[in-house]
Amino acid sequence: MIDVVEVSPRDGLQNESVLLPTAAKVELIRRAVAAGARRIEAVSFVRPDAVPAMADAEAVLDGIPRSDGVSYIGLVLNQRGYARAQAASVDEINVVVPVTETFSRRNQNAGAEDLMAMAEEVAANAARIGLPCSVTLAVAFGCPFEGEVDPERVVAFGVRAARAGAVEVAIADTVGVGVPMQVRRLVGDLRAELPATPLRVHFHNTRNTGYANATTAVDLGVTRIDASIGGIGGCPFAPKATGNIATEDLVYLLHRSGLETGLDLQTLIDAAGFLSDALGKQVPALLPRAGSFPGSLALSHHG
Amino acid sequence: MIDVVEVSPRDGLQNESVLLPTAAKVELIRRAVAAGARRIEAVSFVRPDAVPAMADAEAVLDGIPRSDGVSYIGLVLNQRGYARAQAASVDEINVVVPVTETFSRRNQNAGAEDLMAMAEEVAANAARIGLPCSVTLAVAFGCPFEGEVDPERVVAFGVRAARAGAVEVAIADTVGVGVPMQVRRLVGDLRAELPATPLRVHFHNTRNTGYANATTAVDLGVTRIDASIGGIGGCPFAPKATGNIATEDLVYLLHRSGLETGLDLQTLIDAAGFLSDALGKQVPALLPRAGSFPGSLALSHHG
Repeated sequence: MIDVVEVSPRDGLQNESVLLPTAAKVELIRRAVAAGARRIEAVSFVRPDAVPAMADAEAVLDGIPRSDGVSYIGLVLNQRGYARAQAASVDEINVVVPVTETFSRRNQNAGAEDLMAMAEEVAANAARIGLPCSVTLAVAFGCPFEGEVDPERVVAFGVRAARAGAVEVAIADTVGVGVPMQVRRLVGDLRAELPATPLRVHFHNTRNTGYANATTAVDLGVTRIDASIGGIGGCPFAPKATGNIATEDLVYLLHRSGLETGLDLQTLIDAAGFLSDALGKQVPALLPRAGSFPGSLALSHHG
Repeated sequence: MIDVVEVSPRDGLQNESVLLPTAAKVELIRRAVAAGARRIEAVSFVRPDAVPAMADAEAVLDGIPRSDGVSYIGLVLNQRGYARAQAASVDEINVVVPVTETFSRRNQNAGAEDLMAMAEEVAANAARIGLPCSVTLAVAFGCPFEGEVDPERVVAFGVRAARAGAVEVAIADTVGVGVPMQVRRLVGDLRAELPATPLRVHFHNTRNTGYANATTAVDLGVTRIDASIGGIGGCPFAPKATGNIATEDLVYLLHRSGLETGLDLQTLIDAAGFLSDALGKQVPALLPRAGSFPGSLALSHHG
């Protein structure tokens, strides 16, 4: 069983130029739940002036069904976000720490070392109250400012996160530059240091390597993969580029490989259609354009 | 070293709605050679009334440089095409045989068994005169009319091709439905039956599985991969779908994985720009949109 973590409400929408109303976000989450999603990165507790797309985090959480066995994740970047996440009763928190100095300063206005120390503090606090906390290591496959990233630095940050109390460590290809060889190296090295900590992977398909990276992670036994309905998300560093790997395209690949996800492909494709309408653009996912298989191809040819 | 076979002039252009003049095809091939391509599927010797995009096959071959160490491949579907290919002095021929009955009848107006027998005859004739002949097994990963394809049928056709004299057997995901697990199965089974015959793989990215499939093939030791500059090609069975895997995106993935191709990435990206202009549309490849890495990301952000 592969656990696909649905990140379209947060990482997806946060990087789209169109701001959706709260009701549309709630509807997206409702559709993800209807498709079978059981972990959803729903909101981000960040400064509303810095990230207007996430200003209604509390309202979104108020609007969604909360007793359906779904774990809603709130992203936090600091203690203030952690306090808001607690107050809003999220089921999990996810702390994001960029592994390079320049990205940390430009993106979160603090040094990587300070952010890592903050993440350790938040993870320890969350552990004390039994709130699951994952730590996502951003730009782990390459940094738009510093270029190649030393895998040892990624592993060192991951070890610190786990030791502080994080129940899961994620490696994120934030700008979509990673390749499968890096997945092998990072997953192998993290496993060697953290044999008991589950890993999650987060890929963008910016350069058409996202699904190859996901396949490699699955081959290595990783069972937790982020994906975004419609493949929405984009990349602030490449305005014309595509975003996260698409949930429906990943699920197609996994299901046809005999791997279960608990997700319903057609409901995901319908949700991508909803998102496409809401955002007023064609989404990057390909299943909605090409149709699934087997079953629909001959139909679309003759229809 | 991975040998990327450039198929944009044939499989790419044949499936585009815009017909390019002969001079533009010659320019595309010239650019592929300049990028370092050493095997190029340049033309198809098919009935001009059936495939207008390939009507100028002889003129294209007359227009390109022929003494540069590049092997130009002509696609043939029958004895008449074989005779034309010989007359035009191609360096190699590639015979395409669909592995399902319905696809064969609809696409080539003959049964799969008859087409396979024809391919054996052509391969034997070519072997006699020392003309390298590869056989490509089309719809090997799924058929738009018949659905799932029995891998044993693919292997049986491959064995017949090799025994008849084909120097290379290719498996083609003609409609872009394949997943990595199928690559493992088909490559493994073909290797077991044909340990001495080089395999080539041909993937379309119609459902975002193409690069994952290519990665899996490379992991298995396959060193011959078809790709198309710009990812052009489309799919006649899904009009809105994307085409072949893009040469530049594949090369980015391979180079960053430490694998050599002998190809120059920037020259490929420039060639994709030429194709985009010539076809009057954005090509599906992502490198031309996102920029390569490392090196160009911070630049595009601040520029």
